Amino acid sequence: MRSGKRNRGSTPAVRGPGRPAGEPAAAVRRALIDAARTLCIETGLDAATTKSIAERAGVNPAMINYYFGSKEGLGRAMMLESMQPVLEQLESAVGAAALSLGEFMRGYMRALASNPWLPQLVVREVLPANGRFRELFFDEIVAHAGPLLRGLVDRAGGSQAADTGVDPALLPVTIASMAVFPFLAAPVLERALDVNPFDAATTDRLIAHNLALLGRLFGTRTLQ
Amino acid sequence: MRSGKRNRGSTPAVRGPGRPAGEPAAAVRRALIDAARTLCIETGLDAATTKSIAERAGVNPAMINYYFGSKEGLGRAMMLESMQPVLEQLESAVGAAALSLGEFMRGYMRALASNPWLPQLVVREVLPANGRFRELFFDEIVAHAGPLLRGLVDRAGGSQAADTGVDPALLPVTIASMAVFPFLAAPVLERALDVNPFDAATTDRLIAHNLALLGRLFGTRTLQ
Repeated sequence: MRSGKRNRGSTPAVRGPGRPAGEPAAAVRRALIDAARTLCIETGLDAATTKSIAERAGVNPAMINYYFGSKEGLGRAMMLESMQPVLEQLESAVGAAALSLGEFMRGYMRALASNPWLPQLVVREVLPANGRFRELFFDEIVAHAGPLLRGLVDRAGGSQAADTGVDPALLPVTIASMAVFPFLAAPVLERALDVNPFDAATTDRLIAHNLALLGRLFGTRTLQ
Repeated sequence: MRSGKRNRGSTPAVRGPGRPAGEPAAAVRRALIDAARTLCIETGLDAATTKSIAERAGVNPAMINYYFGSKEGLGRAMMLESMQPVLEQLESAVGAAALSLGEFMRGYMRALASNPWLPQLVVREVLPANGRFRELFFDEIVAHAGPLLRGLVDRAGGSQAADTGVDPALLPVTIASMAVFPFLAAPVLERALDVNPFDAATTDRLIAHNLALLGRLFGTRTLQ
């Protein structure tokens, strides 16, 4: 909102209850989303209070209700924004008729590597039995990822792999394991194998490695 | 402790402070460990109080301090017991000079499939930044799993895979992804792909599938 719209001539700005003075709206929203994300990763959203989130963001706690309705609303906005890069990846993949398994692997792993908080949010609020964003993540991401992976494996010739004892119906599980596990289990991999998948050079090595493995399973032709 | 040792002749039993009457010690400990595990998976240990754990176990809350010193002590005993099947798997693998990658894959996946709470405890208390059992899990399992996986990959001829663009140093990451991710991400896989890795028939299919994939990467000879 432009400030000229709020201040008409010499009339003082009319503000709704709790409307923040001073700070621009976008900056306050941004600071709150960042603070909610940091605290969600550090301690989980249950342990974070509106007070602790507002403190971390450097704004008045009332701003949470003003902009997001509640801590829940802020959490949901934060999760949706955090999922955005992967959502975009899925949407462009679903839209592209000729996308290959290799392109998908590359795009998806790059999206995860560039947004290190997403795997951590999934560990916190999707995988646990009472994960707060489980349904949101299922509806927005998982529901599309399944059919997409199955389609990509089919087009890459997954059914031919059955000759060698490989189960075509389980190949999407393998692809997901190779693409997602390193980021989900990053702290473990770093300790066990000195591999940090969020390090840019390591991400590239992992992608090249996974593409080489897929090439051995499917033949390199189908992956380009 | 045998009861004859506590009850000397007709003298009433002398009990230390808080020593439970009636219930046998093993049963009380068992009930507390089971309750702690259930609540840790359902809500996380932070949210579980000694009162709620004792209530779930059907025992007096004082029994937690009596047997385990504290909620922390109970949690640690519960985690150590839950890791036991995988620890045994690792120990026998480290001890076996001629163990193959295939045998390890089979044994490790069976251990995870038969102990569905372990992956859930890892999601709750190992993978998050402030995971309460992160160090315990790292020291007991991760520290041994890294060298073991590297050794198995080496012996299976992983270095030869480099000719085809596969990175031998990343093969242990791939093996861990294939063996662990399905159990860690079980709720997601069930929704996305209708695959429940804890279902006995599905576990067997996943193991056979992974062994077939390893066979294509390493040759079947080295996996037997």
